[in-house]
Amino acid sequence: MKATEGGQQMTVKRPKLKRSIIDCDIHHYTGMNVIKPYLPREYRELVDTYGAALPGGMHFNGGVGGRMVDSFPPAGGPAGSDLAYMQEHHLDPHNVEYGILTGEGMGMHGTINHDYAAALCTATNEYTIEHWLAQDSRLKGSVFIPKQEPNLSAQEIDRIGGRADIAQVIVSSGSIFPYGNRYYNPIYEACVRHNLPFTIHVGGEGSGVNAATTGAGYVTHYIESRAARPQVMMAHLASFIFEGVFERFPTLKVVLQEAGVFWIAPYLWRLDQDWKALRVQTPWVKKKPSEYFRTNMRVTTQPIEITPNREVFDQMMDSIFAKETMMFCSDYPHWDFDSPLKALPKLDDELWDRVFYQNAADIYSLPSRKAERDGKQS
Amino acid sequence: MKATEGGQQMTVKRPKLKRSIIDCDIHHYTGMNVIKPYLPREYRELVDTYGAALPGGMHFNGGVGGRMVDSFPPAGGPAGSDLAYMQEHHLDPHNVEYGILTGEGMGMHGTINHDYAAALCTATNEYTIEHWLAQDSRLKGSVFIPKQEPNLSAQEIDRIGGRADIAQVIVSSGSIFPYGNRYYNPIYEACVRHNLPFTIHVGGEGSGVNAATTGAGYVTHYIESRAARPQVMMAHLASFIFEGVFERFPTLKVVLQEAGVFWIAPYLWRLDQDWKALRVQTPWVKKKPSEYFRTNMRVTTQPIEITPNREVFDQMMDSIFAKETMMFCSDYPHWDFDSPLKALPKLDDELWDRVFYQNAADIYSLPSRKAERDGKQS
Repeated sequence: MKATEGGQQMTVKRPKLKRSIIDCDIHHYTGMNVIKPYLPREYRELVDTYGAALPGGMHFNGGVGGRMVDSFPPAGGPAGSDLAYMQEHHLDPHNVEYGILTGEGMGMHGTINHDYAAALCTATNEYTIEHWLAQDSRLKGSVFIPKQEPNLSAQEIDRIGGRADIAQVIVSSGSIFPYGNRYYNPIYEACVRHNLPFTIHVGGEGSGVNAATTGAGYVTHYIESRAARPQVMMAHLASFIFEGVFERFPTLKVVLQEAGVFWIAPYLWRLDQDWKALRVQTPWVKKKPSEYFRTNMRVTTQPIEITPNREVFDQMMDSIFAKETMMFCSDYPHWDFDSPLKALPKLDDELWDRVFYQNAADIYSLPSRKAERDGKQS
Repeated sequence: MKATEGGQQMTVKRPKLKRSIIDCDIHHYTGMNVIKPYLPREYRELVDTYGAALPGGMHFNGGVGGRMVDSFPPAGGPAGSDLAYMQEHHLDPHNVEYGILTGEGMGMHGTINHDYAAALCTATNEYTIEHWLAQDSRLKGSVFIPKQEPNLSAQEIDRIGGRADIAQVIVSSGSIFPYGNRYYNPIYEACVRHNLPFTIHVGGEGSGVNAATTGAGYVTHYIESRAARPQVMMAHLASFIFEGVFERFPTLKVVLQEAGVFWIAPYLWRLDQDWKALRVQTPWVKKKPSEYFRTNMRVTTQPIEITPNREVFDQMMDSIFAKETMMFCSDYPHWDFDSPLKALPKLDDELWDRVFYQNAADIYSLPSRKAERDGKQS
């Protein structure tokens, strides 16, 4: 074929090879921007709203790009990027005395390059300290760690874990193996050294170095990936208990974040039963699994399951020891944000106070309410 | 060194090589029988009771080799191997009008060699037909299929699925991906052709071709592998619903076996909530997830969770639509066997009849009780 075919005139370079050849692998550009017009309409819309959701392990999301419609700062920029707007939109009207920042960066937890993961974590932590924690004393930070490499993780915890504005260590629930595994011991030693809870936030399941999304393999749709969240958290919960982490680190607190709440009830019934029958195989597990959960684990509220009626709600709350273990969170500015005004059914005063303030104050070593310290009634 | 060192006289063969060499890889025998004396006592006992639990994906078990103490036939042989003893020990005293045989062979579901898996399944099916189904008309069989290869699976279902003594198709819950995936369509087409329920029985998680035990990765202990069972079943449940399997195959019934029961309640609450928010992404899912569960899925009782009180039990039963979805099973002769005399709290007559007879009779196309057909009161 000649270069003039198809209409456009091009200068034909004199070939540097005398005999013609066949090249069997030439990469023409097929990026999303050029192939998108050829996608069916529903996928064009999903890609516009949530991005290409590639490579593997990523799913489309909910809301607008995964965010609440009204969470985008009027001055521009991504949702959650403008402290002044966050104050006006969430912290002030919802009377948030302290807010634990959890960032966005679950991608780093799937990265196969441990040193790059560590660099991303440190960069996230430094940005957070400078641009957020130093600007509003209500906000407390999470230490992002490259959990793929527990020794680098411990270094990062030791580097900033002693700061008064740091409240916890955070990792993705997507993991190489469940977090009770002894591989992670250096992380818990560092958490205990600095009296920092270890928080597992959903994300990163089935991505990069992490295990497939479920024990049945990879899932297809975003809603299935959400349905996988309690599953993955179940694995971590059982792992902490049956690997004996809380016997080795009795002061360690573990927070389960954004995987729902009430699945914990039947799960603890089952673990207690199995422990009675099989404890001979894990003799280091000295107490009922539900006891370890009660003393050493905490669960945040969002997204809480809607029970068929109030009676079931109350019994589920009892079964998970909510008075000791439950802590409110909003997931601001994500699309399934839970307002503290309506996230939960009406709770009695004492339970409300534990869930919306005191349980968090206890594990994050935060002071009592300023209004109370100033002698005002709350 | 000379062969005479160490005391024993041996004939030194004249070397066939003039110059001496170093061989860097010589396999001496280190089987379990020779290394066992060097294991700590607790592992010697576990290996004696459950076998070596190797290679990967296998765990130690409970009871005596995983079986009830009194389930071993007095005439010798493995538990569950002697029909006469099974009749005397379980079928007759427990007034079992029909019993669905589920065999033992979950290993074949992890085998990477699809053709060998298919051969194992056919062999299991033929043995079962000849030695069990032909010997006691109370017993109905399960079609073992090589689920790794759906087309070979469909062939096996077509080969024997039309027999009157075949009640269902059975697979392990350990899988390459969740069973709602379209990869498995040929299996469901065959199930529907022969009006056979598709039963997912726990087993094979994290073994061979199947995904790691949990979405958080491989677990360490047997009790954690049991704790993984509801997780894996959750993945299958969500997959069937959100992949739209019950829209494509409205008559298909799916049975969830031996993963517990009450985890289904909070899971359905959550799925219904998420479906309301995200159904635009899976428009083929036309009804609430809990509705599909109610009409197309069934759950067997063993091992049922022990609830804190009767009130919670009743509410959990309502939440999973037990009257329509629950079917009794004993797991005979496994160590955590549930006797029909005490597996469940007292149920009212109608519910008892649905759980202990009618729900199973409906999906397995079994007749009403003989005593009733003969005009006697049940």
